[in-house]
Amino acid sequence: MPDPGDLGNQDRRSYRPERGFLLITSETIIEFDRWIDDEINAVLESVEARASPISDSDLPLYAVLRYHLGILNSSFEPERSDPGKRLRSKLCLLSCDATGADPRLAVPVAAAVELLHNFTLIHDDIQDRSALRRHRDTVWTIWGVSQAINAGDAMFALAHLALNRSMQQGVPAGIVLDLSTELHQITLRIVEGQVLDLGFEQRDDVMPDEYLTMIDGKTSAIIQFACWAGARVGNALPASLPAFQEFGRALGMGFQIRDDYLGVWGAETTTGKPFADDVRRRKQSLPVLLLKERAAPEERAQINALYLQDELASDDIGIVLALFDKYEVSESVQQEVTRWHDRAFSLLADLDISGENASTMAELIDGLVDRDV
Amino acid sequence: MPDPGDLGNQDRRSYRPERGFLLITSETIIEFDRWIDDEINAVLESVEARASPISDSDLPLYAVLRYHLGILNSSFEPERSDPGKRLRSKLCLLSCDATGADPRLAVPVAAAVELLHNFTLIHDDIQDRSALRRHRDTVWTIWGVSQAINAGDAMFALAHLALNRSMQQGVPAGIVLDLSTELHQITLRIVEGQVLDLGFEQRDDVMPDEYLTMIDGKTSAIIQFACWAGARVGNALPASLPAFQEFGRALGMGFQIRDDYLGVWGAETTTGKPFADDVRRRKQSLPVLLLKERAAPEERAQINALYLQDELASDDIGIVLALFDKYEVSESVQQEVTRWHDRAFSLLADLDISGENASTMAELIDGLVDRDV
Repeated sequence: MPDPGDLGNQDRRSYRPERGFLLITSETIIEFDRWIDDEINAVLESVEARASPISDSDLPLYAVLRYHLGILNSSFEPERSDPGKRLRSKLCLLSCDATGADPRLAVPVAAAVELLHNFTLIHDDIQDRSALRRHRDTVWTIWGVSQAINAGDAMFALAHLALNRSMQQGVPAGIVLDLSTELHQITLRIVEGQVLDLGFEQRDDVMPDEYLTMIDGKTSAIIQFACWAGARVGNALPASLPAFQEFGRALGMGFQIRDDYLGVWGAETTTGKPFADDVRRRKQSLPVLLLKERAAPEERAQINALYLQDELASDDIGIVLALFDKYEVSESVQQEVTRWHDRAFSLLADLDISGENASTMAELIDGLVDRDV
Repeated sequence: MPDPGDLGNQDRRSYRPERGFLLITSETIIEFDRWIDDEINAVLESVEARASPISDSDLPLYAVLRYHLGILNSSFEPERSDPGKRLRSKLCLLSCDATGADPRLAVPVAAAVELLHNFTLIHDDIQDRSALRRHRDTVWTIWGVSQAINAGDAMFALAHLALNRSMQQGVPAGIVLDLSTELHQITLRIVEGQVLDLGFEQRDDVMPDEYLTMIDGKTSAIIQFACWAGARVGNALPASLPAFQEFGRALGMGFQIRDDYLGVWGAETTTGKPFADDVRRRKQSLPVLLLKERAAPEERAQINALYLQDELASDDIGIVLALFDKYEVSESVQQEVTRWHDRAFSLLADLDISGENASTMAELIDGLVDRDV
């Protein structure tokens, strides 16, 4: 096995291009998206080239993945739909850049983060019986549960094939293996979170603290990984890696709680989901858990009774929304979002990154606090 | 990151213990099973130690995995049920040993093979709606489809955590990464095979050749990997690796076709599945595909009509079994098993392994040709 070229890697890690990645501009962010697109495409093409030919009547697995990623429509014709925010991969590249290394070192692992996230989405949509994702039909509603399980499994493997391509970028094998192990640990934390989340829907006594433990795994772990991994392939001093991790964690927690906010009070036009969808689907998200903590015993009993149904009708949703208003739950949820983002802001100082990068990160956090999509 | 100690590894790779692994005895094979058990247990314990504490009412994810692996019963009390044949992990250790290296080098990757295989079983059982596996209730029948998806996903990640532990055994990082990439490629081939398999059930024109392409991915790929990986971490010359791969492929093909045989003509007492279960579940396996190739047009039309049902009733199963007899299908299927195993035998010569190991391998193949479980 050829040596991945440590020397070349040393050059890359101290790389400071003339065009100045140090100053991350909105064009650079757009370029980040293109890098990720290209990398995802390259991994897909590498496996498509290997795959056995299939007959016209067989389902083209990788085309299904391309559908989920918004590159093809459900008839497998090219389209370019909203690929999502790509927050996770952007944070990974920004974190690498922030350490003074060439962010291109982190492209394979950033693509891996994006693909792994999409693997969890495909399986989540089955488990949550979600019909829509980013305004489009979910994989399982089009091709059925069994093939959607396959699509998710393939996306999982694809994510790691992307990550292992880091060696071609000059990242030493030992570091790649370190990233690989950590991404599998993170995947277990995501699955642990999903197990809890599904279990919560069978319970009426979930406490806000249990909920925070759940989202710490289900949502925040991968964002934590993205920031850590970007710094890990970059020039970060080992001592600063925990700060990158904690920074990602704070962003991830804030991100999920803002999602919970949008799941109740978001507009259908921007979220792509019906208004108060999380109430209709009796999701045990932070709003209802805070409400139950504050409500009078008879109100709590009423909520529990409503949540015994498979799905809440409009009138029942109205009852819950009125109680949210009465106990000022939306304000509290948004305060929690702000609290986590403030924590991310304050951690920026510990990342030991240059002023320009810090302000790009700060801008990014700023945009997240009151995002509506 | 500490260097995994290449020098120590060189020692291990030329290791020839006094007690003589060269001569693999039935006690050694039992020891192999214990090594795999211990390794699987160690990986499980490492993640259990990290996992967030859960309340009594939440599903203990890793206990569900232990249930599937036959270590716990469905109330999560210890039991020791049949762990399956462990053919894949045994072949991995034997292949490593066959190259003259210490087979313990291959224990992590052999455990990974076993865990990855079990990941595919958990998801397959959902997709095939199988209620029983190794005489026990399948995960999805006890904990539901959603949690079974989670259990499979966790088993997938766990398999790779096991593989990455190869470094602790002294396998260099570059080789571990090579194994990791290949195992992900193999996983994609398994999923591609499963996609085809599910698609075949919607078709009435599947040809035996298409079927062989499908099982080449779905079943034989992981056995191919097991033999290749064992040799790869061992002392195999690069030139002999393709022979290990091809040897595993031939064993895998023979193994699956014997499974098809047992799916129709196996005894419930040994297979744990009802008699002619593959006919009842209208599986597009080799017997029915050969039958349709041989049958007269009106008989083929009759079979296609029967296979339009969700499930075949006893009388309909009887009709298909009579046609199998008429066209001597069971004999042909068994001939195909023998043909692949003969190929494996003849490849033994190319593996360039010592006489004693060759005879252990030969014995193993011999036992597979007419296995009834």
